[in-house]
Amino acid sequence: MKQGVFITFEGNDGAGKTTACLGVKDKLEQMGYSVIYTREPGGSKIAESIREILLDVNNTAMDGRTEALLYAASRRQHLVDIVLPALEKKQIVLCDRFLDSSLAYQGHARGIGMEEVYKINEFAIHNCMPIKTFFYSVSMETGQKRMNIRGDKNRLDLEQNDFHKKVREGYEMLIKTYPERIHVIDAEPSKEEVIEETLYQVLKVIKEYE
Amino acid sequence: MKQGVFITFEGNDGAGKTTACLGVKDKLEQMGYSVIYTREPGGSKIAESIREILLDVNNTAMDGRTEALLYAASRRQHLVDIVLPALEKKQIVLCDRFLDSSLAYQGHARGIGMEEVYKINEFAIHNCMPIKTFFYSVSMETGQKRMNIRGDKNRLDLEQNDFHKKVREGYEMLIKTYPERIHVIDAEPSKEEVIEETLYQVLKVIKEYE
Repeated sequence: MKQGVFITFEGNDGAGKTTACLGVKDKLEQMGYSVIYTREPGGSKIAESIREILLDVNNTAMDGRTEALLYAASRRQHLVDIVLPALEKKQIVLCDRFLDSSLAYQGHARGIGMEEVYKINEFAIHNCMPIKTFFYSVSMETGQKRMNIRGDKNRLDLEQNDFHKKVREGYEMLIKTYPERIHVIDAEPSKEEVIEETLYQVLKVIKEYE
Repeated sequence: MKQGVFITFEGNDGAGKTTACLGVKDKLEQMGYSVIYTREPGGSKIAESIREILLDVNNTAMDGRTEALLYAASRRQHLVDIVLPALEKKQIVLCDRFLDSSLAYQGHARGIGMEEVYKINEFAIHNCMPIKTFFYSVSMETGQKRMNIRGDKNRLDLEQNDFHKKVREGYEMLIKTYPERIHVIDAEPSKEEVIEETLYQVLKVIKEYE
């Protein structure tokens, strides 16, 4: 690779993006690419301590703006500790959730406003935007079903159905705003089919940097 | 009081602002005012968990932007849990360090830029700015001496002298930018004299809201 390639994966809970992302990582490695899969806080010690506060089920009194700032802080540290070093080594970085999650969850669904949440994330990201973002699109029913299979619930999973609908709405606004960066993948088909489609799209992106 | 009054106290480490602030609180209470003294994280449970990460001496690998975002998050939660409820009860809130600390420490001394740090704090504060800010001015030598008396050191206290000089420089820029809001108090005299001067200035502010 001539340079590192930063790709992010987005979607509602239960959309299947992690499965697709990990499947594609295996296939890319079999093809000889140097790839890392990561998600915030991703083994970054400081980012993990921040995330512990965020996911603590006892923290129900957390203000929406505090939450957004903590996500931005965890994002920043994860970027510095994990993503930037990998990009410097010219690796392909597949990142499970990034900026758009905060815009859809905190910005839109929590009602803080996407533009406001964008500002603090701009500060956190500091010019390190992903080259491409894949959005995994499923119906609310499929998402719910896939989430139920997973079992244990953290604070965010306890949110009502209405919240998940608003998250989806937020993502749809982002897809309209960034049509060049965000590519929608139909995630209703089987795991294998979704991985194949993702691999095809990822390879199209990578080819430009080989 | 017709409404709550929000006053902040700023200065380099060792300037004596906490002593002055607590002294004034006692005197105001003797005069019959309802006053709270607070500092971030100030007994706000979530803000305290955030502060633990910030002050952990092992977190030397913390990125400057992560630090600024964590301070903003702690500020937000402290505001929601402690400051806003007190202002609603029409109390006088004396807050030991606030926005300007982040601008001087993270914005200027760490070199992130005051305007950038202002943006994330604007998000955190969300229109709840202090009516008045007192800046305690002492020479570097006096500050150092007062700090040494205190004993235990956290991560920020371990910073070099150069850093404290830059903090002071940052505060001076803020004093020029916000001459209406920030009032400089000469903190070289004795504890009693500084408390008297602060009380005089605080009463001038309060009178407008009685």
